[in-house]
Order: sequence, then structure tokens, then C-alpha cells
Amino acid sequence: MGTPDVQISATIALLTDFGLADPYVGQLKGRLIREAPQSALLDISHGVVPHQIEQGAFFLDVSIAHLPQPCVVLAVVDPGVGTQRGALIARSEDRLVVAPDNGLLALFLKHHPLQGLWRASPPKELQSATFHARDWFGPLAASLARGKSAAACGEPCAPEQIRPLPQNRPEHAPHTTGASWPVLHIDRFGNTILGLRQGSSAAAELTAAPQLRCPACGDTPVIPAQTYAAIPPGTIGLVPGSQGYYELALNQDVLAQRFGLRLGQVLHFEPL
Amino acid sequence: MGTPDVQISATIALLTDFGLADPYVGQLKGRLIREAPQSALLDISHGVVPHQIEQGAFFLDVSIAHLPQPCVVLAVVDPGVGTQRGALIARSEDRLVVAPDNGLLALFLKHHPLQGLWRASPPKELQSATFHARDWFGPLAASLARGKSAAACGEPCAPEQIRPLPQNRPEHAPHTTGASWPVLHIDRFGNTILGLRQGSSAAAELTAAPQLRCPACGDTPVIPAQTYAAIPPGTIGLVPGSQGYYELALNQDVLAQRFGLRLGQVLHFEPL
Amino acid sequence: MGTPDVQISATIALLTDFGLADPYVGQLKGRLIREAPQSALLDISHGVVPHQIEQGAFFLDVSIAHLPQPCVVLAVVDPGVGTQRGALIARSEDRLVVAPDNGLLALFLKHHPLQGLWRASPPKELQSATFHARDWFGPLAASLARGKSAAACGEPCAPEQIRPLPQNRPEHAPHTTGASWPVLHIDRFGNTILGLRQGSSAAAELTAAPQLRCPACGDTPVIPAQTYAAIPPGTIGLVPGSQGYYELALNQDVLAQRFGLRLGQVLHFEPL
Repeated sequence: MGTPDVQISATIALLTDFGLADPYVGQLKGRLIREAPQSALLDISHGVVPHQIEQGAFFLDVSIAHLPQPCVVLAVVDPGVGTQRGALIARSEDRLVVAPDNGLLALFLKHHPLQGLWRASPPKELQSATFHARDWFGPLAASLARGKSAAACGEPCAPEQIRPLPQNRPEHAPHTTGASWPVLHIDRFGNTILGLRQGSSAAAELTAAPQLRCPACGDTPVIPAQTYAAIPPGTIGLVPGSQGYYELALNQDVLAQRFGLRLGQVLHFEPL
Repeated sequence: MGTPDVQISATIALLTDFGLADPYVGQLKGRLIREAPQSALLDISHGVVPHQIEQGAFFLDVSIAHLPQPCVVLAVVDPGVGTQRGALIARSEDRLVVAPDNGLLALFLKHHPLQGLWRASPPKELQSATFHARDWFGPLAASLARGKSAAACGEPCAPEQIRPLPQNRPEHAPHTTGASWPVLHIDRFGNTILGLRQGSSAAAELTAAPQLRCPACGDTPVIPAQTYAAIPPGTIGLVPGSQGYYELALNQDVLAQRFGLRLGQVLHFEPL
Repeated sequence: MGTPDVQISATIALLTDFGLADPYVGQLKGRLIREAPQSALLDISHGVVPHQIEQGAFFLDVSIAHLPQPCVVLAVVDPGVGTQRGALIARSEDRLVVAPDNGLLALFLKHHPLQGLWRASPPKELQSATFHARDWFGPLAASLARGKSAAACGEPCAPEQIRPLPQNRPEHAPHTTGASWPVLHIDRFGNTILGLRQGSSAAAELTAAPQLRCPACGDTPVIPAQTYAAIPPGTIGLVPGSQGYYELALNQDVLAQRFGLRLGQVLHFEPL
């Protein structure tokens, strides 16, 4: 954020599970505009499934590199709103992320260089105990966007001192062959994004097989493909998607709904 | 709005029941940008349930204090579009609200200081009879945002001369004990906002009881709580939420869906 | 766009089938802000039904006249993403439209004056093969918004050389009397927009009858009406709506859901 300068403010990017039907995002933006009138606002998404911290962590991880610099990201998926959990401020390059200390930063911290990490405590007086995004995190993000230093907003802390992602993955039977990955996200097109990163050795191994089998998808063969349009009829494509992870997809059909796949489900794959 | 000045325009905030899937909000914004190119646009929400004037009135009432000043709010929930109902312009502090004369301003006028109220008649020629937000109210809001005075846009009128909220609440049997409030809004998290204002004597009385019973929620006890996270398992929290009203909630579960609560339903409470 | 000028950039308007729940629109906007920081962004809609090119073509056709000038429209409904189909750039007045060459421009080209049409080929290297809006079309639109000439981005082509709309309308039995139109769009209010343009001779003929019958709507009479509020109870209104086409509607009820009408369905009408 460099030197404080109220003339040229950083963009504020928003990521929440608030949805767009309620007036919550509007009230949050009203507050941000009042406190950082020079900042442009950018919605990453407000469609995180309510309280799904792990999905929010995925959205943040895969989106931040596409944001402008300087930028302050306000990320709020916060089932513990009103409790004493702190706010975190993380710096990576010329972007700052403000989020509750509940694991939401976990994937972002794992995959991006960290230049600083601070924790702030809740103010004593807040307008509400149930909308900290509007009443606490938002004004904090606005201060940062106006040039206030993160060090003036919280105490330095180490990545080991913050809360990890909640571990609520369903149990699954161990397999002696093949490999398993969780469903990180199911998008509007039914494409099902797996926790398998492109460029990893696990990905190289899996996609070396010409055909795979995924029991949750019955007998339909899973075939590596480069685009959705290249997925042969009657097969499921394993596609290196736009988010840096592999995804399962059908050609112009909604895979997740066809096979009843769910967020967080662990899918097993074995060579055919 | 002070002196007219096309250089520095007021923010235009939008509240409608148009949703975001259709191109209606986009066309409205295109029109606003053309007519008030210096104004920033801010969405309060476009998720009011279609034609639910009372819910729109609630959104406006609870959101306006969070908006920047100067600001022009364009609020359109308008089942009577194309009829001869007028447009209202209301001023409270340095915010102007433009809305159809159908009750949408009722809660806002009840809870905020009023510095002026005007009514405008439909122009003789409009591009459509079915999209007055784009073709009439929008250009009117843009004129105000550019600095045109409200007095030049309509005739002064008194709050008693405008239409009240439609009275379409379902009948309910009278109770000899306890008290009843309507459901003003059900949010994305299933939290159910009641027409019971924080700080009112009715609220003080209700929350004085350690436990309450709400027949629509069966035998589950209702317990006053300050945050969602503080709601004990197996109970319903009565929480002073972020909107200035009390709300019913579960801890990380969707209350309204669990108990089949509906917008506009009148809920009865009695001490246990 | 006149002379290139990075100081004053064109508005970039967005139309996609991406929805708002996924982080895709946010990533696209992040990219646009980085590459055209002076441009304002305007959402036409992201709610086109996934892969429904014909509906996207309708949204574009009816919305473009409401957009500011200069403006670059980025329209992406792109089931063929990752294949070798090109990108089109069309100019009408002081607006440029960027879209995949798959029929999405068809209705726009039919109803608006065309000052230029160019086709660009995919770059050799792209960050992804599945998100060309972010990785190819978006940067192309940003270049145009910054003042780069369309002629420098692609090769001139003629309207006859581009791909038409996919022809996937359901078969319907021929009728000896009356006339038929497809459902172009069903909006949030259940209003059902037909491919019957206001001001056409077909429209004049149809609305000359005091009552019509539409077999898909059973025995409920269809009656020409000027506004939704003017539709008599127990009848369906045939209303000259705000989009330049006729639409079927009920007075404060959701017509399409009542009668099970579907996007793309062909409706037949005959005088009663």
C-alpha cells in the first residue's frame, strides 16, 4: 500500500457468503463508500455456500492473483461472528487480505508468498454483534485502503498461530489402489473442481492413465481432456480447468447433478 | 444535494425486486450512467421478493443510514407499473429517495427525519408502460443526482397524502397472553427478522423472560441470545440482529426452513 | 472509440451465462480492472441460462441501446470454449461488441446498424483452455476500451461469414390458422417474452383480435393489454413490454410457472 494517501485509494475486493438477495452486501458497500470514498469496489463473489469456510478459502486462493494491485480483499465467511475470534490481516505482494481468524486464509497462505500477518481484536463497542463485516472488518479494510498501515491495526503474528481450516470431511474407506480428492467446488455448469492441483506429481500420475474409474460416478469412464468440448459423449472429462485445479465435467451437461456429487465429498479414482 | 453541480454527482443507490438474472437492472444502470455519468452506482439489493412492497419497505428502512451522503436512492417495487400512481421524492438529511407512491416509503418515513416530500406525475410519453424504473424513475433519480432540485421535479405533498403499505397480513386468532409480530424478512441464513424493534418497550418486556414459546416453532424453546454462536443447541435464539430488529435464529442452521416460516407470517410468543 | 486515449476509457459492459455464485465474474473483472483501470464496469446480466446462446443473443439485442457511448460490450455464452472458433468484434455507432463466433451476435446484427465487423483468432498461449472470457476476450475488450482499434485486433469479415444461431427449436405441428412465436425469455416475474416484435405487421395483425387462444395456456383467454395492472382477472395479457417484443403476463402472478411454459418453446395463437 506504500505511503498513506487518501487521494489514490486501493481497490476493495469483496468475498462473502452473504448472497445478493438480502441487503447485507449493500449495507457493507455503503459503509465502505463512506469510509473509503476513493476506492473502487470489486465483487469476487458473495455466493459462497453459507458458513462453508473451506469453499470460501478456495475462492480466495484461486482469485487473488487476478485482482489489481494495490488491493484490499475483505473476505468474510464467519459462522463465529460475535465471538472473540480475531481479525487477520495478511499481506502478499501489494495486496492485503482482511478476514476472520477461522481458517479462511489457509489455502491462500499455503499457495502465495506472505509478506506480513497481523491479528486485530474486536473493538469494545460495535453497532451489532451479528454483522462484523459491516461494523468491524469493513471499516478496517477501508482504513487500510486509505493507506493506514497494517502494523497500526493489529499485532504481528505467525502463520502457525492462526486457526486452521475446520476438518469436517466425511470419513471414507481407505483404498489400496488409486487416489482420492475432495470436491472443493461445484460450479454453475455442474463442473466439479477437485483438490488436485495442476502441475503436481499426483496430477501427472493420475492423468497418465488413458481412462479412469470414479465409483461415485458409476461405470461412466473418466477420460483426461483439455477442453469441455473435447469430452467424448458418454464419458466424463478430467479437465485442467481455469482455477489451477483439475475438474470433472461433461460436455454441455451438468455433471454434479447427474451423479449427485456434493461439496466436500471425497472422490476416489483408479485406473481402468 | 446543495447547489446543482454536474461535476460532483451524488451516488445513486438501487433497491428493486428485479433480480439479477434478467437484463432489467443492466438496462436501468445503462440509462443512469448515460444521464448521470459522474454518479457512482450502489446496489442495496435487487432481491426483494417480486411485488412484496412491505419487504422492500423494510430493506429501505434498515439500509438508508448506511448509505453515503449525498445520495439518491432509487427504490422500485412496483406492481402498479403503468397505472397513474405518482412518483414520490422524499428527503432525509442529505439523501433523496425516489419511489412509486405505493407504500414503499412507509417504514422509512416512520423512522427517519423528513425534510421534504414531493409527488411527480408520469410524463405523457414514455418508452414503455411496463418499465418505469428505466424509463421514468431512473431518469428522475439521475436528474436529482446531477443537482436538479426536488421542488423542480414535483409538487410538495404531506406524508398523510401518500399511500400506506398494503394491508395483506394473514388473519390470526387473538391471544390473551404474550405478543405477536410479523416476519419482515427471512435471510439467506434462515434467520427470521421480526417486526420487533430493538430498544422498544415491547422488546424489553419480551426479552425479560428467560425462555419463550412460539407455537409456530413447536416445542423448541426460544431463548434470548446476543450472538448466533451463543444460541444453545436445541433452542432457538431471539437475537438483537444487525438490522435494528429482533430475529429468530439457530446456531449454524436455517431456522425458517426447519420450521416452515414464511414472509409476512405473524408469530406469537408467550413466556414459558 | 475515436482516437486512442488511455486517460478516458470506454465503459465495459458484461453479459455472460456465468452466474454470480462462482468466482468467475470476479476474476474476469479483476483482469479488466488491471488492464483497463480507467474503465467503469457495467453488468448487463450474468444470468443467461448456461449455454443458451439464443437467450444471450436476445439479452444483447434488447440491451445495447440502453448502454452509454463509448462502450465495449463483452458478451460470453460459449459452450465451445477452448475450440478454434474465433472472437468477433462488431461496431454499431460508438459501441463495440466482443463475443465468440457462435451466433451470439445474430439478433444484434439483425436489428442494429453495423459499422464494422472483425474476427480474431485465439492466441497461441492462454492461461486456460476453459475460461476464454478471462484469458482472451476480456483482455481484448480491455484493449479496445483503452483505445486500440478493432482493425488492429482482427481481420475484417462480412456478416454472412459468421456463424448463425444454433437451430434447436423443438418441432411443432403446422397450423392452418393463426401464428406461432418462440419464447425468447421468461423473466423473474413469470412474464414470457415472445419473438414477436412491436411495430411489426404480424403484431398488428395478432393484436387486432379482441381475444386470442393459446393452446399451451389451456382455455384461459389471451387479451391485448397495455400494462400488467390492466390485465383482467382470469385472463392472460398480451402486453407490448419494455424489451420491444410482446410478452404474455398475468396481473401479479407468474404466468410461465402457472402454465409450465419453457424457454425456446413455440407458442401458437389463434383468434377466439
